[in-house]
Amino acid sequence: WEVIELGGEQQLQREYRFRNFAEAQVFTNQVADLAESENHHPAILLEWGRVTVRWWTHKIGGLHRNDFIMAARTDSLFESCQAD
Amino acid sequence: WEVIELGGEQQLQREYRFRNFAEAQVFTNQVADLAESENHHPAILLEWGRVTVRWWTHKIGGLHRNDFIMAARTDSLFESCQAD
Repeated sequence: WEVIELGGEQQLQREYRFRNFAEAQVFTNQVADLAESENHHPAILLEWGRVTVRWWTHKIGGLHRNDFIMAARTDSLFESCQAD
Repeated sequence: WEVIELGGEQQLQREYRFRNFAEAQVFTNQVADLAESENHHPAILLEWGRVTVRWWTHKIGGLHRNDFIMAARTDSLFESCQAD
């Protein structure tokens, strides 16, 4: 994860690589389902073979402890995904 | 749709608005499924209440007639979605 600044807000960003579009779409949905279940929503960019996730807390205009937790949980999803 | 330039390539971009994250996720999957069925893949940015789609043809480093067709088909998906 890297900390980037976007629109004056710090965000956590990481890019994940996949073998094709379909696998990237599956991961996009796993992250989106996690986001809905926690009611905390990232930006998810889906492209061929690649998903880029950004976590931040709009309400505080930057990073909250929860964003780091969600980032770690996103990594766990990715690892489970790769283990299949 | 607007024509933007990204990494030296012209792309077609449009932003769609939704009432919440879940509806934006459904639309993301509709566009992704269309992409897979046509084997032509856009960039899809999923955020709370918003989906931004970019179509372009990497092979020619810009826009092909097919990108305009896919853009129109993306609009049709959105209209069906709104009609529900």
